[in-house]
Amino acid sequence: MSLLVVGSVALDTIETPFGKADDALGGSATFISAAASFFMKDISLVGVVGSDFPKEHIAFLAGKGINLDGLQIIEGGKTFRWSGRYHFDLNTRDTLDTQLNVFENFNPIIPEAAKNAEYVVLGNIHPALQLQVLDQVKNPKLVIADTMNFWISGAYDQLVKTLARVDLLSINDSEARELAKEHNLVKAARKIMEMGPHTLIIKKGEHGALLFTSDSIFSAPAYPLEDIFDPTGAGDTFMGGFIGYLAKHDKLDLDHLKRAVIYGSTLASYSVEKFSLERLQNLTSKEIESRYRQFKNLSQFEE
Amino acid sequence: MSLLVVGSVALDTIETPFGKADDALGGSATFISAAASFFMKDISLVGVVGSDFPKEHIAFLAGKGINLDGLQIIEGGKTFRWSGRYHFDLNTRDTLDTQLNVFENFNPIIPEAAKNAEYVVLGNIHPALQLQVLDQVKNPKLVIADTMNFWISGAYDQLVKTLARVDLLSINDSEARELAKEHNLVKAARKIMEMGPHTLIIKKGEHGALLFTSDSIFSAPAYPLEDIFDPTGAGDTFMGGFIGYLAKHDKLDLDHLKRAVIYGSTLASYSVEKFSLERLQNLTSKEIESRYRQFKNLSQFEE
Repeated sequence: MSLLVVGSVALDTIETPFGKADDALGGSATFISAAASFFMKDISLVGVVGSDFPKEHIAFLAGKGINLDGLQIIEGGKTFRWSGRYHFDLNTRDTLDTQLNVFENFNPIIPEAAKNAEYVVLGNIHPALQLQVLDQVKNPKLVIADTMNFWISGAYDQLVKTLARVDLLSINDSEARELAKEHNLVKAARKIMEMGPHTLIIKKGEHGALLFTSDSIFSAPAYPLEDIFDPTGAGDTFMGGFIGYLAKHDKLDLDHLKRAVIYGSTLASYSVEKFSLERLQNLTSKEIESRYRQFKNLSQFEE
Repeated sequence: MSLLVVGSVALDTIETPFGKADDALGGSATFISAAASFFMKDISLVGVVGSDFPKEHIAFLAGKGINLDGLQIIEGGKTFRWSGRYHFDLNTRDTLDTQLNVFENFNPIIPEAAKNAEYVVLGNIHPALQLQVLDQVKNPKLVIADTMNFWISGAYDQLVKTLARVDLLSINDSEARELAKEHNLVKAARKIMEMGPHTLIIKKGEHGALLFTSDSIFSAPAYPLEDIFDPTGAGDTFMGGFIGYLAKHDKLDLDHLKRAVIYGSTLASYSVEKFSLERLQNLTSKEIESRYRQFKNLSQFEE
């Protein structure tokens, strides 16, 4: 099966209570495709960077087997940069600086071969651009979208149009409440699913994630970590692990969806152990399987 | 097996976004013993009320088979009253009024027969009174205590003394962080367990509960409710269901502890559906078993 990932590719400058990283590899498309690459081969990344984008990052992504034909490199342009500082609790952060640079005029062009992708993930970009991608792809089995409060408040109408064509929305709990204008998460989920997506994932950070289908709810715990180093990209890493597992098995029944949520949670739990994509660089399949089993111990009980 | 429950018995005046209840039956000992009574018979409640305490509440508790020999009724005294208003999100509340009344001079005297109880639950009262109870009981298999931020900040040294003699502490997440002076919950749990309890339950409200033993962590989801009517007593109801299940089976291995957490969560999820103890009044074993199975669907996944 093949996967198309469209989103941001960025250089992040991150301060946490534990240290600082300058111009670290970041961006939604980056985390999603790197995490998915642990499960499958045929991944196309569509995004945009400037000519300042370090060659080592290109080499890293290519080394993961990710097809970069759709990564536009704008000569003389500067890569999207984000800078943020996490508070002590690591649940909240301040954005210190955002330089959209080449990302400001991002026009996602899907390479011919990637238009046939069975699985499509629309990272957190302007909903109008997400729609532009959907107009280019042919007949995907599953379209997943992520979004954020910025678009919910700033591009609500366009977001609603996009949602009507999305199969699965991935969103965090405060965003779900904002999008549905409803505090209760179960009711909010139902409202959001009336907007289009037949499946919904609500990410709750240190409290895990909820998966809603038309007739069931699955609650996945978060892995209880003693040291969270850098939460940047955790949600995207989750999504990458989730879609990678699904696309690998090419099955969309509830059992596979549940397992995909746990694999997504597994990848995310590793990702936050180090800055940026560092932990994903040397993560092994054995480690993934080991933590998946720990998730089982963590949440399973006998009749 | 027999269970001793010591704690408050109160009349609560509660405002939620959905309604108001005046002088409703409340108090930690009340919720704990009522919830435990769904699983076992031999329960003694020790607490204090005034002569204004409605006879119907006595009848209700007695009707649940709860032994009230240890419930002191102070002639001419007034029952402990608490009044609070829940915010729209139901996660936060303002205390409008607290009248300790006869509870101010509560001196827990354990009836002779109840001193032999195998299971003891110390509801959320002053840690010095909790210790007083432990000085009276003979040789319990399991001592559970609850506490709150009020005692953590106001009676820290006495709380530490009590914790040294407690087997299992039940506490909410913000209180765990405050008690351990540590934001990370896993680290906080380890610190608290160094203070005495070999088992720890951290309640996370709408995010479920965590059970820590010396060598394992179990994460229980919260039941996804569309309508939460009144969260008062949810933590105590949880504890009652938990201890009731454990005492019934008289086994303390990890499998039983996990199941007890799910039964506790089941009882709590019903309790919040109506004001005060209303929902527990007509709750059936069939409903309990049904929701227990739903908890399984909610959290279980295949290898």
